[in-house]
Amino acid sequence: VDREIEELCRAVRLIVMDVDGVLTDGSIELTSGGAGLGALPTESKTFNVKDGLAIRWARRVGVETAFLTSRSSGAVERRAEELSVTRLVTGASDKAPALLALCQELGVAPAEVAYLGDDLPDLAPMRLAGLAIAVADAAPEVREVAHWVTDAPGGRGAAREAIEAILRTQGRWQRVVDHHMTEEPDEWRD
Amino acid sequence: VDREIEELCRAVRLIVMDVDGVLTDGSIELTSGGAGLGALPTESKTFNVKDGLAIRWARRVGVETAFLTSRSSGAVERRAEELSVTRLVTGASDKAPALLALCQELGVAPAEVAYLGDDLPDLAPMRLAGLAIAVADAAPEVREVAHWVTDAPGGRGAAREAIEAILRTQGRWQRVVDHHMTEEPDEWRD
Amino acid sequence: VDREIEELCRAVRLIVMDVDGVLTDGSIELTSGGAGLGALPTESKTFNVKDGLAIRWARRVGVETAFLTSRSSGAVERRAEELSVTRLVTGASDKAPALLALCQELGVAPAEVAYLGDDLPDLAPMRLAGLAIAVADAAPEVREVAHWVTDAPGGRGAAREAIEAILRTQGRWQRVVDHHMTEEPDEWRD
Amino acid sequence: VDREIEELCRAVRLIVMDVDGVLTDGSIELTSGGAGLGALPTESKTFNVKDGLAIRWARRVGVETAFLTSRSSGAVERRAEELSVTRLVTGASDKAPALLALCQELGVAPAEVAYLGDDLPDLAPMRLAGLAIAVADAAPEVREVAHWVTDAPGGRGAAREAIEAILRTQGRWQRVVDHHMTEEPDEWRD
Repeated sequence: VDREIEELCRAVRLIVMDVDGVLTDGSIELTSGGAGLGALPTESKTFNVKDGLAIRWARRVGVETAFLTSRSSGAVERRAEELSVTRLVTGASDKAPALLALCQELGVAPAEVAYLGDDLPDLAPMRLAGLAIAVADAAPEVREVAHWVTDAPGGRGAAREAIEAILRTQGRWQRVVDHHMTEEPDEWRD
Repeated sequence: VDREIEELCRAVRLIVMDVDGVLTDGSIELTSGGAGLGALPTESKTFNVKDGLAIRWARRVGVETAFLTSRSSGAVERRAEELSVTRLVTGASDKAPALLALCQELGVAPAEVAYLGDDLPDLAPMRLAGLAIAVADAAPEVREVAHWVTDAPGGRGAAREAIEAILRTQGRWQRVVDHHMTEEPDEWRD
Repeated sequence: VDREIEELCRAVRLIVMDVDGVLTDGSIELTSGGAGLGALPTESKTFNVKDGLAIRWARRVGVETAFLTSRSSGAVERRAEELSVTRLVTGASDKAPALLALCQELGVAPAEVAYLGDDLPDLAPMRLAGLAIAVADAAPEVREVAHWVTDAPGGRGAAREAIEAILRTQGRWQRVVDHHMTEEPDEWRD
Repeated sequence: VDREIEELCRAVRLIVMDVDGVLTDGSIELTSGGAGLGALPTESKTFNVKDGLAIRWARRVGVETAFLTSRSSGAVERRAEELSVTRLVTGASDKAPALLALCQELGVAPAEVAYLGDDLPDLAPMRLAGLAIAVADAAPEVREVAHWVTDAPGGRGAAREAIEAILRTQGRWQRVVDHHMTEEPDEWRD
């Protein structure tokens, strides 16, 4: 992470993440069959435990988080809940106005937002955000508008890498590490 | 994509895709156990979100799409439906006549078809199609009859790569990108 | 595949495959929760479509096939059934005597068996088989006793590679390819 | 594995493993939908068959094993049970005191413990253990406090590699191999 990116990282108060392709590797698993002929197919998404810990820690040390997705699924709802994400926005068919509404609601300026995206629907919100981050395997057009491209691909550590970089430049990551170095019981449940 | 392939791409009006090994990485996940001893095993397939967006966009900008598979599964039906695929052909034990029937139904000549395949059952329909595309990890015999082999393997971006190349040579991809660059709400739901 | 291996391939009349780590990548997926507190966890295995086609084709052109596993699961039963495997042997806590019993039942000499394995429980049956094949990511002890090690790891084409090599040296693979090159409808359902 | 590590391996009487990211690749799969609108989402974890065999063999040849995780899930319970793990500790929000309690219960000194971890919550218990092992894809802070870093990443053989190294330096691995070389039926069920 170079100087200019560090500057942008320092301003971040809210980290907004697309879900499919960013918090997952883009896989959408559909299952059919099973108990009874009338059973509905189910949909699965695969999240990453290291991403999840970083998302939880971010809020602990004072940076808000949000998931912003055009789809809706119970899996995403459950993940947002177990990670205590500040806001979950689903069914956002157009993500730019959804991002602006989210900023207004949380009292955060778009310039204070880091947005992580991977594909064309993320282009418009990335152009609004103060820090636009593309995952390693994002579409070329998305990598091009991004201020920074992570080394890790979506679902395999991209969110962890981005959050860690932001918290580091803000001097907050060391608090997270120090917290885990101590051997005393405490209230942070990982 | 070289000149000759561009020429073939330009003629494409219908993109026909095999499912297992092309829209998926060839994994077939079977699950047993669960609710009740008499529960039937379920079958899962894992699709890719970037492939899915490209399939939806293709139709939006005027290129028809179809899935052609010898298997049948609720998972494929659901995927075809959520992507608004023009036609879903399942249970096609012999794919060449199935492709010809599909062409006739849609009023498209075989020379105007791009066919994406990965294994021996795709050989016959690939020899009929105007543009035969093999995924990177297709069987050697399939790569040999193909006009073009994608860089991405099945289920990990091969369909996206093929569709994007076709739309690009037809000048339609820029319309997709432009659409996403604007910040105005619109009717394209991704 | 060098000369000596070709010689061993030529004698093969029965291909016996371990399941976990050979027909799968060794992943065992366990699921909990879901419908009702008393719901039993389910177990999933992920098979490969290209392996599956080769297993079916082997029998079509005259080579018997069997799965031999120390575990038991509905997923394996279903997979064996849909691929028309000659025999499925599950719950074989000791695989060497199980292999000998299988040979006797099918009237095949151990010297006519190709055995695909990946871990220590496969050592004893591999020492009995005429052609012992280890998958690329087998345990070192297993690779050492094997006559041949595939290029592909388990669950990602190892079985396909082994079966194709055997059928090729026996002159049977071309029959499979020729069958798929023709455009006439036929009775082989893939 | 160099001399100093061999020395530490020799003292090990108990191998304690974190679950997510160590016995799995860190993937947490959530599923929604399916039978009935009120159905709860399910959670899946993917374990590795080679890790599992090594965990079972360790106890057979006299080394105790334990899983220590801050989460709770039926999938982990089932895995611990089918591998006959000595102890399963779940819901351990603070892992250092949980490790000390486990040692006391089993009559093992912390210096006789090998601990396998991957992320910050493992830092405190790793500092207590006689042999601290990080998986290849552990967080940098974790790799730094570890005595040894495996070549394999979590869920793809890291536990197998660690257990095998420990048993080898203790002269116990050969017993495992010898056991599998014999063709006689026996009581070890893999």
